[in-house]
Amino acid sequence: MTYSVAVAGASGYAGGELLRLLAGHPEFEIRTVTGHSSAGRPLIESQPHLRSLAELTLQPTEPEVLDGHDIVFFALPHGASGALTAQLRDVRLAVDCGADHRLESATDWAAFYGGEHHEPWAYGVPELPVAGEGSLAKQRDRLVGAARIAAPGCNASTVSLSLAPGIAAGVIEPRDIVSVLAVGPSGAGKAAKTHLLGAELMGTANPYAVGGTHRHIPEIRQALRAAGASEEPSLSFTPVLVPMSRGILATSTARLAAGASAGEVRAAWEAAYSDEPFVHLLPEGVFPRTADALGANTCLMGLAIDEAAGRVVVVAALDNLAKGTAGAAIQSANIALGIPETTGLPMNGVAP
Amino acid sequence: MTYSVAVAGASGYAGGELLRLLAGHPEFEIRTVTGHSSAGRPLIESQPHLRSLAELTLQPTEPEVLDGHDIVFFALPHGASGALTAQLRDVRLAVDCGADHRLESATDWAAFYGGEHHEPWAYGVPELPVAGEGSLAKQRDRLVGAARIAAPGCNASTVSLSLAPGIAAGVIEPRDIVSVLAVGPSGAGKAAKTHLLGAELMGTANPYAVGGTHRHIPEIRQALRAAGASEEPSLSFTPVLVPMSRGILATSTARLAAGASAGEVRAAWEAAYSDEPFVHLLPEGVFPRTADALGANTCLMGLAIDEAAGRVVVVAALDNLAKGTAGAAIQSANIALGIPETTGLPMNGVAP
Amino acid sequence: MTYSVAVAGASGYAGGELLRLLAGHPEFEIRTVTGHSSAGRPLIESQPHLRSLAELTLQPTEPEVLDGHDIVFFALPHGASGALTAQLRDVRLAVDCGADHRLESATDWAAFYGGEHHEPWAYGVPELPVAGEGSLAKQRDRLVGAARIAAPGCNASTVSLSLAPGIAAGVIEPRDIVSVLAVGPSGAGKAAKTHLLGAELMGTANPYAVGGTHRHIPEIRQALRAAGASEEPSLSFTPVLVPMSRGILATSTARLAAGASAGEVRAAWEAAYSDEPFVHLLPEGVFPRTADALGANTCLMGLAIDEAAGRVVVVAALDNLAKGTAGAAIQSANIALGIPETTGLPMNGVAP
Amino acid sequence: MTYSVAVAGASGYAGGELLRLLAGHPEFEIRTVTGHSSAGRPLIESQPHLRSLAELTLQPTEPEVLDGHDIVFFALPHGASGALTAQLRDVRLAVDCGADHRLESATDWAAFYGGEHHEPWAYGVPELPVAGEGSLAKQRDRLVGAARIAAPGCNASTVSLSLAPGIAAGVIEPRDIVSVLAVGPSGAGKAAKTHLLGAELMGTANPYAVGGTHRHIPEIRQALRAAGASEEPSLSFTPVLVPMSRGILATSTARLAAGASAGEVRAAWEAAYSDEPFVHLLPEGVFPRTADALGANTCLMGLAIDEAAGRVVVVAALDNLAKGTAGAAIQSANIALGIPETTGLPMNGVAP
Repeated sequence: MTYSVAVAGASGYAGGELLRLLAGHPEFEIRTVTGHSSAGRPLIESQPHLRSLAELTLQPTEPEVLDGHDIVFFALPHGASGALTAQLRDVRLAVDCGADHRLESATDWAAFYGGEHHEPWAYGVPELPVAGEGSLAKQRDRLVGAARIAAPGCNASTVSLSLAPGIAAGVIEPRDIVSVLAVGPSGAGKAAKTHLLGAELMGTANPYAVGGTHRHIPEIRQALRAAGASEEPSLSFTPVLVPMSRGILATSTARLAAGASAGEVRAAWEAAYSDEPFVHLLPEGVFPRTADALGANTCLMGLAIDEAAGRVVVVAALDNLAKGTAGAAIQSANIALGIPETTGLPMNGVAP
Repeated sequence: MTYSVAVAGASGYAGGELLRLLAGHPEFEIRTVTGHSSAGRPLIESQPHLRSLAELTLQPTEPEVLDGHDIVFFALPHGASGALTAQLRDVRLAVDCGADHRLESATDWAAFYGGEHHEPWAYGVPELPVAGEGSLAKQRDRLVGAARIAAPGCNASTVSLSLAPGIAAGVIEPRDIVSVLAVGPSGAGKAAKTHLLGAELMGTANPYAVGGTHRHIPEIRQALRAAGASEEPSLSFTPVLVPMSRGILATSTARLAAGASAGEVRAAWEAAYSDEPFVHLLPEGVFPRTADALGANTCLMGLAIDEAAGRVVVVAALDNLAKGTAGAAIQSANIALGIPETTGLPMNGVAP
Repeated sequence: MTYSVAVAGASGYAGGELLRLLAGHPEFEIRTVTGHSSAGRPLIESQPHLRSLAELTLQPTEPEVLDGHDIVFFALPHGASGALTAQLRDVRLAVDCGADHRLESATDWAAFYGGEHHEPWAYGVPELPVAGEGSLAKQRDRLVGAARIAAPGCNASTVSLSLAPGIAAGVIEPRDIVSVLAVGPSGAGKAAKTHLLGAELMGTANPYAVGGTHRHIPEIRQALRAAGASEEPSLSFTPVLVPMSRGILATSTARLAAGASAGEVRAAWEAAYSDEPFVHLLPEGVFPRTADALGANTCLMGLAIDEAAGRVVVVAALDNLAKGTAGAAIQSANIALGIPETTGLPMNGVAP
Repeated sequence: MTYSVAVAGASGYAGGELLRLLAGHPEFEIRTVTGHSSAGRPLIESQPHLRSLAELTLQPTEPEVLDGHDIVFFALPHGASGALTAQLRDVRLAVDCGADHRLESATDWAAFYGGEHHEPWAYGVPELPVAGEGSLAKQRDRLVGAARIAAPGCNASTVSLSLAPGIAAGVIEPRDIVSVLAVGPSGAGKAAKTHLLGAELMGTANPYAVGGTHRHIPEIRQALRAAGASEEPSLSFTPVLVPMSRGILATSTARLAAGASAGEVRAAWEAAYSDEPFVHLLPEGVFPRTADALGANTCLMGLAIDEAAGRVVVVAALDNLAKGTAGAAIQSANIALGIPETTGLPMNGVAP
């Protein structure tokens, strides 16, 4: 079966990555692409790398343009999709790559985003361990048959995937987690801002949102709670812009739970991911590079136990636009629709 | 039909890219991968981005390991494949990504490479206009049914594709061409050399092979002769290493032929490439970026006529490992075997 | 003696580099810095690297703020300084880093810039050979005692320095020059533009102003005429943005003049630059990297003769903000005021 | 007075940076430079950015070549300086940029380096708070008149400077510190290694020494003990190579001590650094970029208190070769010799 697809916000980075992956998906047909200031213009002007879609023209991002497609992917600025998705009547599956439908807690929403809190949708990180539904239940189960999906924040899913297996198994403590991320600027979007200029970002590392203000913090805490955290998670989270257009390398550390052995720790991650097609625990002593996940729907992870520091260190790499956003959205859509989960999603990175 | 495939030199950059593309090819089955110092080790150790091939182990690069496959791709250092390919008895199609079988002229070989000159094989740039076989004959015709193919030099094919249409149409002069290329260091291979260290190449532009010594010069002249150059081509050629792991941006200029009008010039390139799936002339005033071809088997090209300088300027972008090497090899293999030419080859780049 | 100095446009990239160099100049005292939207704010907010100037506050860019200083450096957008400089009454030396006072030809100005043409000032590239005043006359002579100086365009001075010695000596032809430049985006300024975002420029090479439209073309032709070109120079000029914040690597080629020997060619450049403190011809076979000139008032140059192509190839590296703009401005100011020319100017680059 | 200076290991990155800074030092005269495989060659071949030192020739790194200078700086691989420094008889001041003389604990040396443990020398981070000698005693005091100085590890000094003020003041806990560093590859030296190739490091973030194995860990613990840690410090430390040639951005977090108020925390760092010329605490809400310290002997630091996480976050930026190594060495030498501390050391970074 072929599903008709619309992508709202097709002129931006997340929209472009959705289209790049959708163009290779055998069961999805891109029928409509929309933009805001670029409406009426050929898609190829804003996405010159998408040669196979050179015939498409951007339409305005309006409910009547989007309604009637089997699937609509939203790649709009935060706050823009909530009102729009409420007006869709005849869309079998809506997938929002923005934040509007991610948070369950209205309090968290108010504290970190502000404005109207929209209902939470099924969270699009299939591999996340979740508590209470068996020893190895996953978020995947909640996506089957879903009509509304919230794709994750790219930094949030990297950190959540890094730690949820240990939280679920009780081998690390949910309190006093520390995550520091090296991230590329494509995650900040295509809007022209002085501090995102090439001259400002090349040859330098630039921290931002230091001190507990980043919007992905409550999303991570929510995922770790869902994984069965024995107490409320707490997290020091610092992202650092580094000179690569794409990629997230998250170094996350958590305290070893009392009595947890090294074998139990590694076993928790192995059990969680050994059967996963897109999340891989690397062998002992091996750690990932973001390049190895570039353009792929893949998250690579290395784990070490630092006995002297009393901490487990997990280093995870993924492509913020691919597995971090557009790939997660399509993978979740595959699950929701009963299509084989790996359909249309590259496993291999583009390296070097 | 499924063809069995071996890749010799699978631990290097060109070998890795061959495997990345072959992994997505529906009619090729990667059966054997070989390496030199890495023989006996898992492929994933040297190619950590190729998750879908994590089960493969590198074997030694020896004739008996390679013989018996339908197709063997060679991604070995220059000079290494010539002796090896001579020993193959039962290989339907051999494709050499090294230089050994590219040059027809033993004199050029002696001047630019030295050592034994091997017989030239069918040159793997299908889109190149060639003279004498009709108004729009292409190198493609010579690849149909070929048993031995020489994949092109990455810089050479970029420049040859840039200028051959104008040479074939007689609208630019074959003498006094000037090409300057911004290139990424992956083209220089994976051997550890001080001048290729990250610290030496980041944040800086480094020229090399200045003054007419680069080995791709005779290959370009050969291609332009084949395109029907009215006199022996001459070429000033300067590559510059810039801080991107992959990519070639070639700026090539040639003198306008006497009497050639602007319309005739653009028409020559349009006629040559308007039906090509992988080589695209961009609209007037639009020029390509290497990012738009990253990971794709695509060459993007922009053209301007500088009346004041009396020159045509062609700027072409491609990925040195993809369209420049591995993609060209697989595209040519498709043609040789009668498989649809675009099979298994990505058209869209990974950007931003 | 200490000269009082004002810098207009101190919040931008050229202004920042002027201040960085001026802070180390023993005879200049930075008394006033001005900005536009940042007026009233501490300088350190827009120039966080200038710790030694943390006490300065930006004032508005107005004639009465600038008047009365011994020296005023202008680092304003093109077109902004012309009107302003006309209103200065009590300024011993004005140095304009914008284009307003560079071009002698009103026709060129109209064709490449438009708007009002201002009077040309003494051109601030001291090392440029100029014709008619002796065998090795230099532009330096015209700067002695000057009250008004036009600092050069960064790309223009790189190319002009590359070729003027050969033009002056008659060993290369002034017609049919081809220059291709790898340039960093700091030359494009600090204004937020989508195509200059880090995500757009990292990992990719992006050409611009292809086909003879770049504004530095008439400036180069003017310099080569001044060097004694035997006929009107013509130039194909293509800049390519590459992923480094600073730097220009210009590859320039010109046809060997009939009868010029290899020895005569190299001798022309050696004669021009052997006594220069800031422009260096590297030994045969050695070519420069932009990193070697980073932050320095230095231009490094390598030269090759490509007999087969009939061309001389000069590769020159400099820092667009330092020797390309701010360093040239201060060096010229030193000459104008009779201060030793090298005062306050770093010779050594910051590498790796 | 002018001191005669020799630099051993002058062909490497640390040696090059020593020379770049020494070249601008008014009281030091570079008399001798030595190398290993490059002995006998002109310095400019291995350090092409040091134009002002183009006349120097590398001599062999032997005791008789080094002896007799007032000052010898060692920039040799770890383990190489220990034996050499023991043979010097007539050198007033020796400064070792290697690790050989940094660690007081033979146990730590054996665990992290191995081989012979050499005597610890005065530790070259003047700004480090040290306990027991007054409320704001500094490591500086121990450098006055010193004859033997161990310049710090670049990562170690970044983290130690980040945390020592809070340790000294008792406002953060010395246990369970977490530091993650984005670092450029110049810190890994100039030896050719595959994993340090440009193609491997551009466009990607690569972790290394994960899990408590990095050699700078005991050095940090030693510095924090010296600062007066109330219990033995423990530290999770993860460096990540990112695509910039130079720079360290260290994100360090420590638990708030019980009862410490936000005001007391910030006050601790302000008290420690408000009078320092080279270490700066940025205003609340402002965090540093490595570019702002490029080429300078400056460490910039931002501090936030994350109440929800119960942690203080300090983000510190410096140039690993400048303030991290060569600058610290020269600054310490100035102090040892009674020269004004800031002599010859740039405060302003080279940005953008």
